[in-house]
Amino acid sequence: MSEKLKQLKEILGEVSDLNHAGSVLSWDQQVNMPPGGGAARGQHLATLGRIAHEKSTSEEVGNLLEDLKQEFAGSDSDDAALVRVAARNFDKSTRVPAEFVAEQAVVTTASFEAWVEAKRKSDFSIFLPHLEKVMGLMRKYVSYFPPADHPYDILLDDYEPGMKTAEVKEIFDKVRPQQVKLIKAITSAKQVKADFLYKKYNEKKVWDFSEVIISKFGYDFSRGRQDKAAHPFETSFSVNDVRITNRFEPNNPLATLFSGMHESGHAMYEQGVNPEYERTPLANGVSSAVHESQSRMWENLVGRSLPFWEHFFPELKKLFPAQLEGVSAKAFYKAINKVEPSLIRVNADEATYNLHIMLRLELEIGMIEGNIAVKDLPEIWNTKMQDYVGITPPDDAHGVLQDIHWSAGLFGYFSTYALGNLVSAQLWEKINKDIRDLDEQIRKGKFDSLLGWLREKVHTHGHKYDPQDLIQKVTGSKIDSAAYVRYLTKKYSDIYSL
Amino acid sequence: MSEKLKQLKEILGEVSDLNHAGSVLSWDQQVNMPPGGGAARGQHLATLGRIAHEKSTSEEVGNLLEDLKQEFAGSDSDDAALVRVAARNFDKSTRVPAEFVAEQAVVTTASFEAWVEAKRKSDFSIFLPHLEKVMGLMRKYVSYFPPADHPYDILLDDYEPGMKTAEVKEIFDKVRPQQVKLIKAITSAKQVKADFLYKKYNEKKVWDFSEVIISKFGYDFSRGRQDKAAHPFETSFSVNDVRITNRFEPNNPLATLFSGMHESGHAMYEQGVNPEYERTPLANGVSSAVHESQSRMWENLVGRSLPFWEHFFPELKKLFPAQLEGVSAKAFYKAINKVEPSLIRVNADEATYNLHIMLRLELEIGMIEGNIAVKDLPEIWNTKMQDYVGITPPDDAHGVLQDIHWSAGLFGYFSTYALGNLVSAQLWEKINKDIRDLDEQIRKGKFDSLLGWLREKVHTHGHKYDPQDLIQKVTGSKIDSAAYVRYLTKKYSDIYSL
Repeated sequence: MSEKLKQLKEILGEVSDLNHAGSVLSWDQQVNMPPGGGAARGQHLATLGRIAHEKSTSEEVGNLLEDLKQEFAGSDSDDAALVRVAARNFDKSTRVPAEFVAEQAVVTTASFEAWVEAKRKSDFSIFLPHLEKVMGLMRKYVSYFPPADHPYDILLDDYEPGMKTAEVKEIFDKVRPQQVKLIKAITSAKQVKADFLYKKYNEKKVWDFSEVIISKFGYDFSRGRQDKAAHPFETSFSVNDVRITNRFEPNNPLATLFSGMHESGHAMYEQGVNPEYERTPLANGVSSAVHESQSRMWENLVGRSLPFWEHFFPELKKLFPAQLEGVSAKAFYKAINKVEPSLIRVNADEATYNLHIMLRLELEIGMIEGNIAVKDLPEIWNTKMQDYVGITPPDDAHGVLQDIHWSAGLFGYFSTYALGNLVSAQLWEKINKDIRDLDEQIRKGKFDSLLGWLREKVHTHGHKYDPQDLIQKVTGSKIDSAAYVRYLTKKYSDIYSL
Repeated sequence: MSEKLKQLKEILGEVSDLNHAGSVLSWDQQVNMPPGGGAARGQHLATLGRIAHEKSTSEEVGNLLEDLKQEFAGSDSDDAALVRVAARNFDKSTRVPAEFVAEQAVVTTASFEAWVEAKRKSDFSIFLPHLEKVMGLMRKYVSYFPPADHPYDILLDDYEPGMKTAEVKEIFDKVRPQQVKLIKAITSAKQVKADFLYKKYNEKKVWDFSEVIISKFGYDFSRGRQDKAAHPFETSFSVNDVRITNRFEPNNPLATLFSGMHESGHAMYEQGVNPEYERTPLANGVSSAVHESQSRMWENLVGRSLPFWEHFFPELKKLFPAQLEGVSAKAFYKAINKVEPSLIRVNADEATYNLHIMLRLELEIGMIEGNIAVKDLPEIWNTKMQDYVGITPPDDAHGVLQDIHWSAGLFGYFSTYALGNLVSAQLWEKINKDIRDLDEQIRKGKFDSLLGWLREKVHTHGHKYDPQDLIQKVTGSKIDSAAYVRYLTKKYSDIYSL
C-alpha cells in the first residue's frame, strides 16, 4: 500500500471511530438515557462531530486525496473506490462552511421543537416561520454547490448519490397512473376482513416472536440486539455491532413484527458489508434507496407473502389462539395486505404508499424551485391527498404536519422510500430467477439462500459502487418501476380477485 | 473571565466531552454490547483516548496553565482550584511518554487475559511472567516522576492526591492490632445465625426492592439508571447522567441489595457535584478514599444498621414471607453483620475487610521497593492471611489470584478501600452531632437530612479541595482510624454481646 493511502486510511479510520462513537451516544440517547442526560449529551455529540469534521476536512486530507485520485485513476479496485468516495465526501464537507453547519443545528433544533408542538396542537402556523427558515437554509445549502440540472439534485444526491431529479420524476410519472388504476380496481372489489389484527395481544409474546422471525431471517444477534425505543431504527457501530430498535403500539400490536422485519433488513445489509471495509467510507450501505430496498424486501416481499405465513402462522396462532380463532393463514395474509386509502404515510399499505411519497416529492421540488410558498403547503397538501389517495385530512396533524423530516432539515430523502420499493421488486425478480424454489424455501422457513444471494450481490459491496451502477450490475437495469407494478398487480389480483 | 481562562476551559471542556463519550462506550460495552462488537469498540476507545490525550497535553494547554497559575496564585476561588487541578493533571500526563501508555495498554491487555486463565486454573505460574512485566512498568512509571519520600507515593497519588505512603502505614499500623483484637473477641463469642440469607430469593423482587431502597436514599433515577452487568460499578457521563450497575448471585441473593446501596453511594456523590463544575476537572469526586467513604457509608453505616432494617425489614418480609419466616428485624440485622474470617476480600465483613487491604498494601509496597519478588507472592500471601485473618487459602484462586487490580496495572488503589471505611466513620460521627435524631429518621425511612448534609459538606465541592483538606475541613481532623474503631467496637459489642 502506498504511504499516502496508508496515511489517508489512518485519518479516515479515526473519523470513522469518532462517528461510530457518536452513533453509540445517539443510540443510548434514544434507548437508555435518563431525561437529565440530554443537555450534556448534546454537547458530547457536538464535540465529536466538530472534531470529526475538522479531521475529515483538513488540508492534509485534501492534498492526500488530490495525489491519490491521480494514482488510482481508471482503477476499479477497492482502494480506488475508497479514494473516489472519500474525495466526494471531502468535496461536499469542504463546500459547506462550518458556520452554516452550526446555524443549521440551531435552526433545526428550534424547528423540531416547534413541529412537535404544532403537530400536537394541529396548528401549522406554529411551524410555519420555522419551516420558512429551514427552507432558506436548504436554498443556501444548494448555493454552495456548482449549478446542477435542477437545484433539487443537490439535496437528492446526499441520500442517493448520482441520482437526478429528472430521473426520479420520470420514474414516478410512469408508475403513478398504474398505481392509481390498481387502487381504483381494489376499491371497487370486496374488502378483506382484518379486525382480528387489532385485538389485544400480549406485548412480550409479540416481541419475542419478532425476534424468532428475524433470527430465522439471519439477523445475527451475536453482532446486534433489538431494543425498545420511541421510533424503530437501525444503527451501526461496526460491521459486527449493528443494532435495531422497535416499539409496541397497543392499537396496532402486530406492527411490531413488521417493524422488526423492516429494521432487520437494514441491519442484515450492514452486517453483510465486507469486513475489510471497516473504518473506511465504504463500510456502509450505498444509498437510502438501496437500504430501503433491503428493509422493504424483508418486510413486504418476504414478510407479507403467503408462503411466509404458511410457515409462521401456525406458530403465531399457537401463541394467540383466542385472538386468531377461526382465522386461516390465507385470511391472515389477506388481512395484513388490506388496501385502504389512509392519511398517514407510515401506516400506508403497499398499494398506496408510493402515492404518499410522490405528493411529498412534488411539494419539496416546488418549494426549492420557489413555485410553492411554505404558507400554502396545508392547502396544496390536502388537495393532492384528495387527488392521489382519495381522502382529505381532517386537520394538519393528519396532513402536512405528520412527518418529522422537514423539521429536521431532511429534504431530498422522501423519494428514496419509494425508489427502495421499486428496487426491492427488481431484485426480487432476479432472485427468483436465480433461486427457482424460493417460495418453497420460504414456506419451510428457510432464508439462507435468499440472504446468501443478497450478501453476495449487494451487501458485501458496501459503498463500493454507486447505487445505480450496483442496481444495473445486479438486475441488468437501472431503477425502474415495471417489476414493482408487476409485483403489486399480481399480489392484489390474488387478494382482491381482480 | 480572562481570555486565557476561557481558552483553557474550552479545551478542557472538549477533553471532558471526549472522556465522557468514552465512558458511555465503556458502559455500553459492559451492559449491552453483543460479543461481536468488542474489536471495533477497543478501537473507538483507543481513538477517543488518544485525541483526549493529545488535546490535554498540548503546548497550548501548557502555556495557558503557566500564565494562569501566576494569575490565580494565592486565590481560593473555584477557578483557582480548576487551574491547580488542571496543572497537576497536565504535569502527570506530560511526564509519561505516549509510548509508555501504548506499551502499558498492550501489556495489561495480555496480563488481564493471563490472569483470567490463571484464576480459572488456579495456577499462579500462568500469571507470573505477566505480573513481572506489569511490575516493571510500574517501576518505569515511577521513574518518570521526581523522587518522592517513597516510590509508592507516586502510585498512591493517582488515586489519593497528596496522600503519602508513610501516612497510610501509620494509620494502618494503629488500626491493625485493634481490629485483630476485636476479631479475636468475636471469634470466642456465640456465632449468629444467617442461613436464611442464602435461601432461594426471586431475582426480580430483589432487584426491584434494591431500587426502592436507593430511591428512598435519594439516588435520582431521572438522572441515572441501574442496569445488570457482570460487576457492579458506577459511571458518570455528566452531573445529570450518573449510572450504576448491579448483579444477582443466586448463591448470595441479597448481596444485590448491598451492592445497590454501595454503588448508589458513589452515584449520589457524583449527582451532587456543583453543576457549575460540569466539563471541568472539578466535576468529579475528589479521590478514591472519599468516594469509597460515600459508598461504604450508605452500604454499611446506613444499610447494615439496625434502625435501617427496623424500617425496611417488614417490607422485605412481605416480599419473602417463606424465606424469612420466624426471623425478626434484629435477627436479620445480626445475620447481615455476621463476622467470619474468610478468604475473599469482596465478601469480607466489616470487621475483617481492612485486614485484607493491609495485606495487599504490604505486598505492593514490598514489590515496588524490590523487597518482595513476584514469584514469592503466593507463599507470602498465604502466610500473611494466616497471620491476619487466621485462615490459609486452599489454592491461589482463593488467594493471591482473587483480585483483578494487578493484572490491569492498578497499583496504589487498594489502600483507598480501607481509608474510605475510616473516613465514612469520621463523617458519621460528625453527622450524628449535626443531626441529633438521625437514627430516628432512618428508622422512619427518611434520608433527606443525611443526603442534604453530604451534599453540602462533601458532594458539591467535587474536586475543589484536596482530599485530606476536605476531610479536615468537614470533620476537624485528617484521615484517622479512631472513629472507625469506635464504630466497629460498639456495633459488634451489641451484636456479639462482647
